[in-house]
This record gives sequence, C-alpha cells and structure tokens, in this order.
Amino acid sequence: MESLFVKIVKGDIPSYKIAENDKFYAFLDINPLAKGHTLVIPKVEIDYIFDVADKDLAEMFVFAKKVGLAIEKNIFCKRIGIAVLGLEVPHAHIHLIPINTVYDIDFKQAKLKLEAVEFEEISSKIRETYKSL
Amino acid sequence: MESLFVKIVKGDIPSYKIAENDKFYAFLDINPLAKGHTLVIPKVEIDYIFDVADKDLAEMFVFAKKVGLAIEKNIFCKRIGIAVLGLEVPHAHIHLIPINTVYDIDFKQAKLKLEAVEFEEISSKIRETYKSL
Repeated sequence: MESLFVKIVKGDIPSYKIAENDKFYAFLDINPLAKGHTLVIPKVEIDYIFDVADKDLAEMFVFAKKVGLAIEKNIFCKRIGIAVLGLEVPHAHIHLIPINTVYDIDFKQAKLKLEAVEFEEISSKIRETYKSL
Repeated sequence: MESLFVKIVKGDIPSYKIAENDKFYAFLDINPLAKGHTLVIPKVEIDYIFDVADKDLAEMFVFAKKVGLAIEKNIFCKRIGIAVLGLEVPHAHIHLIPINTVYDIDFKQAKLKLEAVEFEEISSKIRETYKSL
C-alpha cells in the first residue's frame, strides 16, 4: 500500500508545498512543533533514512539545507533544527524545525494548532523565498 | 579561540573516537541520551550546519550514515535518530542517537552517567564494526 507521503507527492492528499525537484518534496508538517516546521521526503517510498542510497541521501540533505535557509528567512528563530526519527510514517523524512533553545526539538510537546489560512500564508512565503535562493 | 571540538579533533582533549576521515570526526557524546550516542563533526570549525558547503554537507551526512549503521549493529534499538540543533557548542555537529520511540530525542531528559570503561567498550565495538563496513 502507498504511504501517506506517496499520496501527498502525487497530490492525492493535499499538502502545503514548499519545494520539490525530481527526487524530493518538501511540505509543511500539519502537526507542527513550530510555525514553519517542514518535512523533506524522497518521492520514492523508502522507509529508513539509512536505506536511502548514499548519492540520494547526499542530495536530500543539500535540498533540505536550501529549504531550511528559506524557512529561516521567514520565521523568527535562532536556528533551523534538523531531526530524523523514522518511527512515525514509514517513509523517510527530515524534520526542519525553527528552534530557539535545545529543548525545542521535543516530540512530546503539544503540537501547534494552525488555521488553513496560516498554513497557506507560511507556505506561500517560504515557497517564494525558496525560488529566489 | 579554538572550539572544544577542534581540541578534540587535534587530540588536545581526549575523546572516545568512533571514526574519522580527512574531513570528519565521530566520537561518543560524553553526556549521552542513550548508549552509543555519537557526534559527527567537520574537522574544520564551522558553527552553523547550513554554513557547511553543499559538497561537504553531502559528504558529512554520508559519513554519518556509515557511522550510524555501525552504531546500530552494536546497540539494541529500533532506529538511529538524527538531530542537529546547533545551539550548544558553536561547531556544527550531528547527533546520532539510538532510539526506540519518537520521544527518545529529547534534550530535556537526564543524560546517562557511564563509566570510562563503558565508554571504552562501546566505542571500541562500534569502531571495529565501522572498519568492517
């Protein structure tokens, strides 16, 4: 069965897209730890990040860096934190999370509840910045 | 002034080394969230992970993947989690953390206290595995 994320890549499930290329797709996490919290995934379904081939893994993190720089220009934060857990959706994904303290990457925290209009506004801004980088 | 991590790379401060190549160095975190918790750093002092040049960033994560696979063969866990915060030591570093739940990457948790002999045993095993990969 297709993963939730494959459905998102195909557009069968809507997402607040940030960026994509032939191999990777970035979109807002709808259960964000912070405004601008973004997921970067390979378009091909691979469960474990360490099963991504070296060449693709390398490209995936370079793609994520550019997405992270675009987030950072739009969301007030000290840094963009990076996290890969691999125990939620069985499709490898990099969390890019605007953080201000070392405690801000904590999946026990209550997730933010944002309105659709907020997700749209945030994704639109970051998407525009990404294109300009 | 040299960062703590530059001193570790030079050997001026001892560390439980896991692996190194010409550009990167991996060693056990001495305040680990789990046994086998490892830090991967560039040998050159760069504060922010996004300031690492694309080519080096790509190589750094491929190096970290190999280190992660070596950790995983020696430490009981579901996955190796990846985290980059960038708010502690001002020298970019990737945390590789053996995890069993999405809550195991949480820097608020009390750190493990291990004896030198345990650090030595863990690092020695992972180091040997790394060489065999």
